[in-house]
Amino acid sequence: MTAERTRVAIVGAGPAGLLLSHLLAEAGIESIVLDRRTREEIESTVRAGILEQGTVEILDTVPGSRARTVGHRHDGIEFRFAGEGHRIDFPSHVGRSVWLYPQHEALTDLIAARLAAGQDLRFGVTADRVDDVDTATPRVFCTAADGTRFEIAADFVVGADGSRSVVRTAVTGSHTGGSFREYPFAWFGILCEAPPSSEELIYSNSPDGFALISQRSDTVQRMYFQCDPDTDVDAYSEAQLWDTLQARVPGTTLREGPIFQRDVLRFRSFVAHELRHGRAALVGDAAHTVPPTGAKGMNLAVADVILLNDALQGLLLRGDEAPIDAYAEAALRRIWKAQHFSWWMTSMLHASPDASEFDRLRQLGELRSVVESDAGQRYLAEAYTGWPLQRTL
Amino acid sequence: MTAERTRVAIVGAGPAGLLLSHLLAEAGIESIVLDRRTREEIESTVRAGILEQGTVEILDTVPGSRARTVGHRHDGIEFRFAGEGHRIDFPSHVGRSVWLYPQHEALTDLIAARLAAGQDLRFGVTADRVDDVDTATPRVFCTAADGTRFEIAADFVVGADGSRSVVRTAVTGSHTGGSFREYPFAWFGILCEAPPSSEELIYSNSPDGFALISQRSDTVQRMYFQCDPDTDVDAYSEAQLWDTLQARVPGTTLREGPIFQRDVLRFRSFVAHELRHGRAALVGDAAHTVPPTGAKGMNLAVADVILLNDALQGLLLRGDEAPIDAYAEAALRRIWKAQHFSWWMTSMLHASPDASEFDRLRQLGELRSVVESDAGQRYLAEAYTGWPLQRTL
Repeated sequence: MTAERTRVAIVGAGPAGLLLSHLLAEAGIESIVLDRRTREEIESTVRAGILEQGTVEILDTVPGSRARTVGHRHDGIEFRFAGEGHRIDFPSHVGRSVWLYPQHEALTDLIAARLAAGQDLRFGVTADRVDDVDTATPRVFCTAADGTRFEIAADFVVGADGSRSVVRTAVTGSHTGGSFREYPFAWFGILCEAPPSSEELIYSNSPDGFALISQRSDTVQRMYFQCDPDTDVDAYSEAQLWDTLQARVPGTTLREGPIFQRDVLRFRSFVAHELRHGRAALVGDAAHTVPPTGAKGMNLAVADVILLNDALQGLLLRGDEAPIDAYAEAALRRIWKAQHFSWWMTSMLHASPDASEFDRLRQLGELRSVVESDAGQRYLAEAYTGWPLQRTL
Repeated sequence: MTAERTRVAIVGAGPAGLLLSHLLAEAGIESIVLDRRTREEIESTVRAGILEQGTVEILDTVPGSRARTVGHRHDGIEFRFAGEGHRIDFPSHVGRSVWLYPQHEALTDLIAARLAAGQDLRFGVTADRVDDVDTATPRVFCTAADGTRFEIAADFVVGADGSRSVVRTAVTGSHTGGSFREYPFAWFGILCEAPPSSEELIYSNSPDGFALISQRSDTVQRMYFQCDPDTDVDAYSEAQLWDTLQARVPGTTLREGPIFQRDVLRFRSFVAHELRHGRAALVGDAAHTVPPTGAKGMNLAVADVILLNDALQGLLLRGDEAPIDAYAEAALRRIWKAQHFSWWMTSMLHASPDASEFDRLRQLGELRSVVESDAGQRYLAEAYTGWPLQRTL
């Protein structure tokens, strides 16, 4: 078996892995990034994309990033409930905004930038196992697309390989080790060819369940409605999909158009028990999963990467163990706040199938408490637009 | 059976009923207040007493009220969790404070003031039934302490008769009609002879469960710890009570003293389905019950009374039905916000027996989110010190 050598082996070419390779390269630390998917698969997997201002500012440092130019700045969101609409304005409350920029577009930018910079970036390569993380030379055992096996010896291994992370086993001791929560509902998502029905996102709590009206571009829209997790994606006719969505956003006339993609997104909350063990660490979905309601997924991955980049620079450039020893605790403080925020947005806006009448009326009392209070709106806007990014350096 | 006549028959001589009789009298509207308990029972039933600033301002209008002079102003509370203490300051966030003034002291003031003003106030009188609320002359059928039966005919009947309200049946159509929520825990409360362990209330989320360190006077303290609802009040020795309390407030050395009262307080949330039907309405605990964590019980009763006083003046002095027709909706807006706040404080601070590891860590993420955010602290302080009182006039 051939062995290769790099300083940081990054498993996973999602936003976390690619951004980390960029930041490490800026500091003169070389890395290999590998992903079992093809480049095409990565660039075509449609995922949501609400970027915190801090995330956009980091992406601005990546040559060619179009987040700020092609993405749309959103200065607020709307909460719809009990027949009322309440906009929460971001700049006036917190002096920040968010950007609507789909994740696969951000990935397209990152891949192009990393390849242009000469990054060793390998698609179609599966990490089978990570070993020796308790030594100074952890190793990743890999299988290439043609079946060839090889290993990468590194100074550090990073698991940026998503919710089904292989690296997680080397860090936590088991593939599933973590705290998690399941939800008794899912999102039915559609992509359609239509002009925007709203300039900003509408989060609607309706008696029939939650709906989210979001945008993708001037001609393509993304909308979701709460459904049973076992819903058959083909159970609805196109007309039924529009009727369901429309009934959940009273007060807004949805602009309809051909629906060209539909999917049922189950969701859960998860935080791995360990984020770092010896010479391996986890970032992004490998470390945690959040329900999508708070739009925190990719932003939380970026926050992890900022911390880990600092820590790896300390370790690999100066032999300083302190920042890497502090990584997990520092990351977990934000992760648990983001888990709370995502749970809060989810529980405040969805109709839980086991909710009592008291629960439903309390939920409306909660929504009213937030929108009637300047402080409540600001508290929510702070979290939605993103808390300041922490550094470990 | 003898029949008596008054303008407003108020069932219940708690804070809500007595305060309403005072406000109505100020407007020249006479009333009869009756309560099945003796004066001594009412004045000696020890209950908690954190008064919102708005409540104190209303009590200031009652001659002889000692809320502001004998009560203690509290400018903040402390949250204790994960080995950290975080004070939430009220004046700097919202320009308001709360007052610690036990409810039975407020009742003693109110009873003295009403009797001095010539109020028809009858103790030991049981309201058996309320009838004819759909007519202009609703009637309360009563039994005096000596067994004598009589009825009171009025222009309006008010149910201020607590959680076991008799008037509620006439308003909602059933004794139990309402939305409710049970909690899988209770509070074990003690009264002890000791100096204060803390100047302000400490709300502590500890791994073993919630504890609240509160004060009563310079020589008597009130403390609570979360327990199973079926706990036997005599199951703990005095030493065990102190050990249990002390373990839940690490960082504070409790000042011990003889424990002269102990009780187990079960709690629930409840909101009646109707707050007004024809010529009858509910206020205070007859309309709603909140868990004690948010200290909202008596304050919410006062907010109801302010609204109902306006509405009754409209109806009885000017024949204007609009304010009484608006009473329930106006009251319910605040009630459901207060229900949410009480549920929030309860769920954020207690250890639920069925909480998963994820739930417990999310809870710490929530506490951290609140105390690390100026907006989060202000949002909480607004609710704790009391939203502005609404008027229907």
